Amino acid sequence: MALRFHCGRWLGAALIFTAVTAWPLAAQEFSPFRPLPTQPPYPKDNPPDEAKAALGKQLFFDRRLSSSQTLSCNDCHNLLAGGEDGRAIPVGAEGRRGERSTPTLWNVGFYTVYNWYGSARSLEEQLRVHWLAPEAMAMPESSQVLGRLKKIPGYRRQFEQVFGREQGVSFHNAVKAVATFLRTLVTTDSPFDRFLQGDETAISAQARRGFDTFVEVGCAACHFWVNLAGPVPGLAFEMGEGFYELFPNYPGTEYEKTFRLAADQGRVNVTKLPSDTRMWRVPTLRNIGITAPYFHNGSVATLPEAVAVMAKTQLDKTLTDEQIEEIVAFLDSLTGRFPEITLPHLPQVENQPFTLDR
Amino acid sequence: MALRFHCGRWLGAALIFTAVTAWPLAAQEFSPFRPLPTQPPYPKDNPPDEAKAALGKQLFFDRRLSSSQTLSCNDCHNLLAGGEDGRAIPVGAEGRRGERSTPTLWNVGFYTVYNWYGSARSLEEQLRVHWLAPEAMAMPESSQVLGRLKKIPGYRRQFEQVFGREQGVSFHNAVKAVATFLRTLVTTDSPFDRFLQGDETAISAQARRGFDTFVEVGCAACHFWVNLAGPVPGLAFEMGEGFYELFPNYPGTEYEKTFRLAADQGRVNVTKLPSDTRMWRVPTLRNIGITAPYFHNGSVATLPEAVAVMAKTQLDKTLTDEQIEEIVAFLDSLTGRFPEITLPHLPQVENQPFTLDR
Repeated sequence: MALRFHCGRWLGAALIFTAVTAWPLAAQEFSPFRPLPTQPPYPKDNPPDEAKAALGKQLFFDRRLSSSQTLSCNDCHNLLAGGEDGRAIPVGAEGRRGERSTPTLWNVGFYTVYNWYGSARSLEEQLRVHWLAPEAMAMPESSQVLGRLKKIPGYRRQFEQVFGREQGVSFHNAVKAVATFLRTLVTTDSPFDRFLQGDETAISAQARRGFDTFVEVGCAACHFWVNLAGPVPGLAFEMGEGFYELFPNYPGTEYEKTFRLAADQGRVNVTKLPSDTRMWRVPTLRNIGITAPYFHNGSVATLPEAVAVMAKTQLDKTLTDEQIEEIVAFLDSLTGRFPEITLPHLPQVENQPFTLDR
Repeated sequence: MALRFHCGRWLGAALIFTAVTAWPLAAQEFSPFRPLPTQPPYPKDNPPDEAKAALGKQLFFDRRLSSSQTLSCNDCHNLLAGGEDGRAIPVGAEGRRGERSTPTLWNVGFYTVYNWYGSARSLEEQLRVHWLAPEAMAMPESSQVLGRLKKIPGYRRQFEQVFGREQGVSFHNAVKAVATFLRTLVTTDSPFDRFLQGDETAISAQARRGFDTFVEVGCAACHFWVNLAGPVPGLAFEMGEGFYELFPNYPGTEYEKTFRLAADQGRVNVTKLPSDTRMWRVPTLRNIGITAPYFHNGSVATLPEAVAVMAKTQLDKTLTDEQIEEIVAFLDSLTGRFPEITLPHLPQVENQPFTLDR
C-alpha cells in the first residue's frame, strides 16, 4: 500500500517526515542522509561475482539481444553520460516511443522498487519485463533471447563458466548477469558525500545554503537516505516503498498545462487501486545535474525549472531565483565519481556475420 | 597512378610480386610479413598525445556529433566487436544506406590510403569527408560540427587544453583528435604475430598449411606486410598504394552473378581514370575472422566462401575444401589481442538535456 507523505496518513511517514525536516544540520548523529556505500545490497539468489558482472556488461552492450538488433540497453541507459538518453521519451528497438522518460541506471541497485510506477519489486523482475516490452528491447519471448544467446559460442561458454554446466545459458541467468553488472554502477565520492563525511569545504557556500533550503522547505521529506530517493532499507516495505503523490497542491496550475505532468496517473495504472492515483516512486537525485530533461514525461528541460516546479506544486512554496540557484548548486554537488568501465568485447557468431538472423 | 598486380606493368610491382611469391618460408630474413608494431606511423602535423587521443575517443563515441544525434562513429565502426557493424551495408545518421560495407577501424593507422577507393590520402582527410557525408555522419557543414562542440563547455575546455587557447575548438582539431584516437586501435600479439616472432607452436599445423597455401597460390601478392594489406611504408607512393584489380579473371562467372561484386567499378568512380576501373584498395586481413560479411558490398557472408571467391576469380585457382579450411584457420590466427579501452565520459551541455538542438 502506498504512502502519501503530504497527508501524513501513516505513523511511520509522520515520524520520518518530522525527523527529516526537523533534522538539525549540526547533529549529524541521526542524519537522514548517508554517503553512498561502494556497493548496494545484493539479493541472496544473485550474489556479487566478477565473471557474472563481466558477462552482464557484455549483454548490456549487445544490440543483438533486441528484436531489431539495433538497440542495446546502453543505447537508452547511456553509461557514457548520465546513465540515460537525454531525451524526454525513449525510442525502442522497433522504433516505438516509450511512455515515460528513461531513468538513470547509475546507483540503480539502491532502489527497493523499480521503474517510475515501482511495479517491479526487484531489478531482476524489471529486467525480465523490460527485455520483452514492445517499447523497449521488444523481444517477443524470452525463448527468443535464449535462442540468440545460444547461437553465440562465446556466450554459451561464459554462461557455463558462471552458472555451471547444467544451468548454463538461460534467459533467467542472462537477467541475473545484467542485474549483477547494474549493481556495480555506483558513483561514490560526490562533493556532497565528502561533505557528509565531514569535509566542510567539499561543497560551496552557495551549495550549502541550497542544502539548508532543500531540507527546510521539505524536499528532503521524500529525497533522503543514501540515494536521496526515500526508502530506508529494511523499512521500505512498511514505508510504502517511498511512493509519493505527484503535484497534490496545484491541479490545474500553469505548470500542469505547460508540462502535462498529470496526464499520466502513475502507479494506479499498474495496481488499479484508487489510492495509487498520481502516486510515483521517488527517483534518486544523485547525478541529477547531468540527467536532464526531468520528470516522468521529460517535459522540463532544465534543473532550475524542475526545482521551481517541484517547490510550487509539491510543497506550495515559491522560491526566489537565488534560492533556486542555491538548490541547483547543491544538486550539482550530488554528481559522483564515475567508475572506470572497460569496453566489453562481444563474442562472435562463428564464421558468420556479427549480426544474427531474426 | 594505380598498379595492376595481375599484369605486372610496373617494375616495382614485379619485384615485390616475385619476392613475395618466391619467398621461402624458412628464410625469414626477407619476409614480406611483419609482426604488427605497437603503434602505426603518425603524421608530423598530428603527433601522438594522450590527452588528444582521450578527447578523440569521446568524440568517437558521441552521437551528438551526427546530424540526427543518433549515430556515433562507433555505431558503425563498433569497437566492441570487429571494428565494424557486421552488416553488408551501413545505415547513416539520416537513415540513408551507404554504398559500401563498413571497413574495420582496428589497425587503420597502418594504411597509407583510406576507404575502399583509396581516395583519401590520410586518415584526417577521410574523417573530414566522412563526417559530412550524407550517408554517414551527415553533418551538413563543418561549421555545424563546430557549433555543436562549442555548446558543450567540457569540450571547449578540453580542446583548449590539448590544442592551446588560441586554436582551441575547431573542426580540424576535432578531426585530429579522432585520428589520434584511431591510431591507438592496434591489435598486436595475434597467434600469427607470435608465429612470425619465432613461436612455431603459436598457430596450429592446419593454420600453418593454410599459410603455406596462402603464399603459394598468390594471396600474399597483395596481402602482405604488417597489415596484410599491401603497401610497404615509404614505398607506398611508388607502389601505386597497393591498389588491385578486383576479379580480373572471371567477369561473367557464377560468382559475379551471385554477389554482384563488379557492379561497383571501384576507384575509377573517384579518379575518373579508365586505368582505375575495377581497382580497389587492398583491405587488411587482420581480424578478418570477426568482420563478416565480406567484400566491398558485404555480399559474401562467410570466410570460407570469401576465400573460395578470391582464389577463383582473382587467381584462377579452385581450392579444395580442405585447403579452404586451412586458409581459414590461418586467417583466424590473424585475430589479435584487443587493447582495453575504458568507456569515455561525455561532457554535458550545462543545465540542459544531454542532447543538442539541431
